[in-house]
Amino acid sequence: MQYSIGIDIGGTNSVMGIVDKQGIIVFEASISTKDFLDINDFIEAIYIKLSPEIDRLGIEHFKGIGIGAPNGNYYNGSIEFAPNLMWKGIIPLAKLFNEKFKLVSLVTNDANAAAIGEMMYGAAKGMNDFIMVTLGTGVGSGFVANGKMIYGHDGFAGELGHTIAVRDGRLCGCGRKGCLETYTSATSIVRTAHEFMKNSTDESILRHITDLSAKHIYEAAVQQDKLALDIFDFTGKILGQSLADAVAITSPEAIILFGGLAQAGRYIFEPTKKYLEDNLLIIYKNKIKLLPSELKESDVAILGAAALVWN
Amino acid sequence: MQYSIGIDIGGTNSVMGIVDKQGIIVFEASISTKDFLDINDFIEAIYIKLSPEIDRLGIEHFKGIGIGAPNGNYYNGSIEFAPNLMWKGIIPLAKLFNEKFKLVSLVTNDANAAAIGEMMYGAAKGMNDFIMVTLGTGVGSGFVANGKMIYGHDGFAGELGHTIAVRDGRLCGCGRKGCLETYTSATSIVRTAHEFMKNSTDESILRHITDLSAKHIYEAAVQQDKLALDIFDFTGKILGQSLADAVAITSPEAIILFGGLAQAGRYIFEPTKKYLEDNLLIIYKNKIKLLPSELKESDVAILGAAALVWN
Repeated sequence: MQYSIGIDIGGTNSVMGIVDKQGIIVFEASISTKDFLDINDFIEAIYIKLSPEIDRLGIEHFKGIGIGAPNGNYYNGSIEFAPNLMWKGIIPLAKLFNEKFKLVSLVTNDANAAAIGEMMYGAAKGMNDFIMVTLGTGVGSGFVANGKMIYGHDGFAGELGHTIAVRDGRLCGCGRKGCLETYTSATSIVRTAHEFMKNSTDESILRHITDLSAKHIYEAAVQQDKLALDIFDFTGKILGQSLADAVAITSPEAIILFGGLAQAGRYIFEPTKKYLEDNLLIIYKNKIKLLPSELKESDVAILGAAALVWN
Repeated sequence: MQYSIGIDIGGTNSVMGIVDKQGIIVFEASISTKDFLDINDFIEAIYIKLSPEIDRLGIEHFKGIGIGAPNGNYYNGSIEFAPNLMWKGIIPLAKLFNEKFKLVSLVTNDANAAAIGEMMYGAAKGMNDFIMVTLGTGVGSGFVANGKMIYGHDGFAGELGHTIAVRDGRLCGCGRKGCLETYTSATSIVRTAHEFMKNSTDESILRHITDLSAKHIYEAAVQQDKLALDIFDFTGKILGQSLADAVAITSPEAIILFGGLAQAGRYIFEPTKKYLEDNLLIIYKNKIKLLPSELKESDVAILGAAALVWN
């Protein structure tokens, strides 16, 4: 039996798994990314979780470690200037993991890893052209064309979250203004909620919640709270508009939405689909599938990251 | 000796050439696209230009016809809803050429054909990841990633000209508003000039020209006419902003500008480069080459279209 390790580093949590070649996750664990100011402590914490299992299964059966991380670079194995992580500058992630685990370590963008997972085991199985969009703490994306992940000349392709959705719009963690991520991440929809509450006098369930989260907005929408529905409509509008522009570049068979905000189901899918269609150039209309991920949130990133090693 | 025919259909003019396998154009001709309201008359006119040469060289030496056309679809050989052509709806171009010439006929987007030409013989030689942008009557583009043209699932990828540069901006031929094409085509810069003249009282050479063209604006810029320089600055700003978003998707080694407006040289390249860099996410800064085409304007499209047949 052969195994690979898949690790998905998110802005909030990081998940890890030991995966066999059939895509079965035989061991899974997670840690809070935000607890570790020093990258070495973070790697140590992952090592403590995984090493008993590696020893138990025998390190000689392990093919390597695949890591999905925000701004992860496939070519040089680093994370560079990731706005949603506390480790600043260039972090030689693959090198650090390799030194600690003595296993081949490969890095990619967390959204690219999710795209690979979805292509191998999920909603994009059999597709040669699709876009994976992750709506989590940030907004990530993975573009697949001609059956291959687009890494770009330097390994940094697929930053749809940092295309400008609103010119001179909201300030982004990246230092620029109006990035898609500042409107359509699970964090940003809360920002939208606060704006909407300030700019309207409508009664809403949301006004009675302290420490508002995306989940609260979803729950209010389920109860047909008008303000919550308006917030999803606005978020879907911004997302649909940006996706329409992305379609004009790669003309995908499908766009797969994934991550915290995608779990709002029809409350985010319906407005996104409507505004996507409204904004598409005629040649693309009524052709592009907008699909939810078919894999468990945590699994897809682990499977995708682990799949880096098999390739 | 083997030959292929390359035809580039533009909104204004169409050029055609007979090309050998080394990329030498052994015969070249052109016709005015706008003179032909009926697609069959257009094909007849091309046939009249080419058939004596085909007969002279011997049709048995011809491998086929490659056609680059706005909204040309590689997969089904049609042009569909091309906003800059007079032939509306779906035109089965490959089928019509095949019936007329009795030669295998392949179609692609004119900008994709230019990208293939540039990759085989020009500024993108040896590059696996680049973007070709054509600034002609319209704005077209061809995206190459992993060494392959991105056609998308339906053959319609690469419509950067129809991504939204200015939300609710200028009305586009496609029926939507604010498309990049409405600001950065050779036609649109004239529209910008008229706007700038209306909204300012600055003296300018341009005020004394009737039937203003992109070339006049270029010539005025060469003479340091402030209004003309402002027009190029504005055009470069819009183009640079949109290119920054495109870079975030495919992270290309280079962007190659081509077509009428690209011939304005530093007057368009300098502001475009400045605003591109200003708008790039930090991980892409100072990495992306902005290059002029290295091939003769008419040749690149012919060579690219002809190269469709060799592949």
